[in-house]
Amino acid sequence: MALTPRPLSPVLLFSLVPVAAWFILRPFIEPVPSLPALYSSIGFSIFAFLASVFLVPALGPAFVKANLKGRDLLKTYHTPIPESLGLVCASIYILLLILFIPFAFSNPISQQAYLKRSHEGLIIKEFPHYQLSVYLSSLLSLLIATILGFLDDVFDIRWRHKVPIPIIASIPVLMVYYAERGNTTIVVPLPFRFMFGTLVNLGPLYYVYMSLLSTFATNSINILAGINGSEVSQALIISVSVIINDLLYLPWPVDFRIPLHLLGNNVELGFGGVWSAGMSYGSRELVERHLFSLYFMLPLVAVCVGFMYHNWYPARVFPGDTLCYVTGMAFAVVGIQAHFSKTLLLFFIPQIFNFLLSCPQLFGLVPCPRHRVPRFDPNTNLLHPSKTMFELGPPSKISALVLHTLSTLGLTELTVHPNTGTILEANNLTILNFFLLKLGPMNEKSLVKVLILSQVAGSLFAFFVRYGLAGLVYDGDRR
Amino acid sequence: MALTPRPLSPVLLFSLVPVAAWFILRPFIEPVPSLPALYSSIGFSIFAFLASVFLVPALGPAFVKANLKGRDLLKTYHTPIPESLGLVCASIYILLLILFIPFAFSNPISQQAYLKRSHEGLIIKEFPHYQLSVYLSSLLSLLIATILGFLDDVFDIRWRHKVPIPIIASIPVLMVYYAERGNTTIVVPLPFRFMFGTLVNLGPLYYVYMSLLSTFATNSINILAGINGSEVSQALIISVSVIINDLLYLPWPVDFRIPLHLLGNNVELGFGGVWSAGMSYGSRELVERHLFSLYFMLPLVAVCVGFMYHNWYPARVFPGDTLCYVTGMAFAVVGIQAHFSKTLLLFFIPQIFNFLLSCPQLFGLVPCPRHRVPRFDPNTNLLHPSKTMFELGPPSKISALVLHTLSTLGLTELTVHPNTGTILEANNLTILNFFLLKLGPMNEKSLVKVLILSQVAGSLFAFFVRYGLAGLVYDGDRR
Repeated sequence: MALTPRPLSPVLLFSLVPVAAWFILRPFIEPVPSLPALYSSIGFSIFAFLASVFLVPALGPAFVKANLKGRDLLKTYHTPIPESLGLVCASIYILLLILFIPFAFSNPISQQAYLKRSHEGLIIKEFPHYQLSVYLSSLLSLLIATILGFLDDVFDIRWRHKVPIPIIASIPVLMVYYAERGNTTIVVPLPFRFMFGTLVNLGPLYYVYMSLLSTFATNSINILAGINGSEVSQALIISVSVIINDLLYLPWPVDFRIPLHLLGNNVELGFGGVWSAGMSYGSRELVERHLFSLYFMLPLVAVCVGFMYHNWYPARVFPGDTLCYVTGMAFAVVGIQAHFSKTLLLFFIPQIFNFLLSCPQLFGLVPCPRHRVPRFDPNTNLLHPSKTMFELGPPSKISALVLHTLSTLGLTELTVHPNTGTILEANNLTILNFFLLKLGPMNEKSLVKVLILSQVAGSLFAFFVRYGLAGLVYDGDRR
Repeated sequence: MALTPRPLSPVLLFSLVPVAAWFILRPFIEPVPSLPALYSSIGFSIFAFLASVFLVPALGPAFVKANLKGRDLLKTYHTPIPESLGLVCASIYILLLILFIPFAFSNPISQQAYLKRSHEGLIIKEFPHYQLSVYLSSLLSLLIATILGFLDDVFDIRWRHKVPIPIIASIPVLMVYYAERGNTTIVVPLPFRFMFGTLVNLGPLYYVYMSLLSTFATNSINILAGINGSEVSQALIISVSVIINDLLYLPWPVDFRIPLHLLGNNVELGFGGVWSAGMSYGSRELVERHLFSLYFMLPLVAVCVGFMYHNWYPARVFPGDTLCYVTGMAFAVVGIQAHFSKTLLLFFIPQIFNFLLSCPQLFGLVPCPRHRVPRFDPNTNLLHPSKTMFELGPPSKISALVLHTLSTLGLTELTVHPNTGTILEANNLTILNFFLLKLGPMNEKSLVKVLILSQVAGSLFAFFVRYGLAGLVYDGDRR
């Protein structure tokens, strides 16, 4: 089978470039909109999409030439597929975030917008100047994640050595957080307030929490990988979820309500109205934080869409670890800097499930082969759950106990010796094998769609928890 | 010949680690010194030296394994030498600059120092908080230079395509300069003031100047390469020169004078005195700028020394383009951010000479072979000037004119056809071939020493021009 690049029409380029240019220049056109830099951000995101959709296939051959290539393990053909193209996405993403700096931070633009709107209710100075260092430290962390991801692809670092890599990448964010004397207090849930009070200062533990957040966000995407489109679709749906959450906090010219009574809550939340800024309830700080998050998430969605076009089944390019590192770091950065890390973690439900399920293999209770991707049957073109074998002897008592428990819960399938009852094989403990176990063998394209659906379902559940249930354990002071 | 790694004593490690730790923690020990963060910077630099001297040989085999290796062209042996080890230096350098952030910028440290010294004359608040974004944008530029240098090593980008790479790396610095509404005026030399006035606002041209400065600083080191130790020794001497220049602007507890009358100037410059801050003449801004420069130059010197130990003839490791990119960018960054770009350029005299001499080959007047390094004679172990041949026919009239002029000036040597007088060959137009032409064939070790001497002589001349002659064309208001 010849694997030709996916078709790209120059019409796309010629029609979207003027649209993008209009958005970028919108802050300079009268009347200045209420959130001028957000228009520029949308314009830059359109450019990010165009750049990734056109550059990824164009640069593929250079990657193959530099020996950054791999065989697609779940296919019959042996065509070398360019690997680590996440580097191209990361470069486009970060470069456009850098070019965006003057639009978000330069005095002339923001001051002009400020003067225009000072009579229209809530005053949003679009971006406080001091946040420039926060923005720059975020970019530094993203760049370090990119470098380390690419080094991982080039040098093929062993996974036990690469778990702490995101901690290194999060150092700039932590250092600037410290230098800026960032807030290290958390709001205590209502049931525990009798013990700890309303606010608890975690001090240094807060920094540990932040670095663990980036480690989790990065590695949890990286271990839910292996089939075409899996990495990029996770990143895409999480970033869209974050964007939807951010939009709830922006000032909208129209008023709308979330029908929370349908979710079992007895209050309805009103949003928007002229500059009343949705869930922010008039807090300029909350609007600014969620603008910050949008500035990072909009171009991320754009590069992910552009990349996914070429990474979709059957994949023409592979993301490499670079894509997982840079997207995971981007989520950690907005969660930390815009102070919604708990909400962010709610968008990682499939990843949390996959991580917990993987723990027995990650921590050595169950043998962990190099690849845990589902097994491909070339005759039927279907994927089956892959197995891990106890080649070095029967499992220890604790391993057997864990596996029997997981098997009882329907999370794995065991092959036991007919006579002795010792475990010979077990399904590899990943969410992909779990889907195949529950839904039966299916082809790769269907499996990635199931993964996407589970991610979407997870995000819907997350919104329900955040805006429906959170009221039970937190009062209005949410962070 | 077996090429064994250079010996390293653990005594070095055990003796320097406590010294480094003491310097880093010095700001917390009473009495707090007048420039506390500078002590930490020295401590981090010692760690930078240790990390580079130990990690460069340790990581060499991983580079060879990842196919980042090369043959030493000027040797008889064929041992593969690990290439691009500049990446290790750059990573250490940038990581330590990031870890240094809380020492330079956190409020508790600087405020404590501030309170202690407010009664001792000149008040130095060590580092203004707003400069954090300037510092971070510099780090971003260094990181981008590192990535692009490494990509250049991995993908082997053609030189015409890589000339603009430093412009991309300088974007963060330029963007933040713009967002911060940086100063774009220059001081006009005295002879031209009747035309332009004292200050001229260059506006956008100033940004062009800054990006050209980074392009020049980076590429000029990159083209003066090819023999063991050449790249790193240039970087080392330029950074030491910048440090000496910075020290003239710091407050010293002792008073000293530069005997400028020996240089033909009729004034003597007094420095120091208790907190009178040398050449800064009490300007806090100048002290801060040169502290900024020191914070970037001290660890650079440290990693260069550590790397040079392994790169010295016969080299055990090669720097790759990564080292040239990151050092060149570091010089451009301090020149721009600390506003001494003209002084900085004076430290580049050998590079400027080499660039001007190379122009006929760089711009296609004279054929430019892939390598212009001197020719190695394996029998005598000596280097001779290498030749470029006119294989595609005789040179054009203008090429011949240029070559005859250079030959008359003694800058190259021509081989002409005995009958027709057309040029058949010319020495490659580099400073290394020029040295060999003037001083006769010598071995590689002697040639790199000549290069180092010329760089030192250039810096001495630079100081003479800057502090001796500049008074003729500028008054006190120098930038």
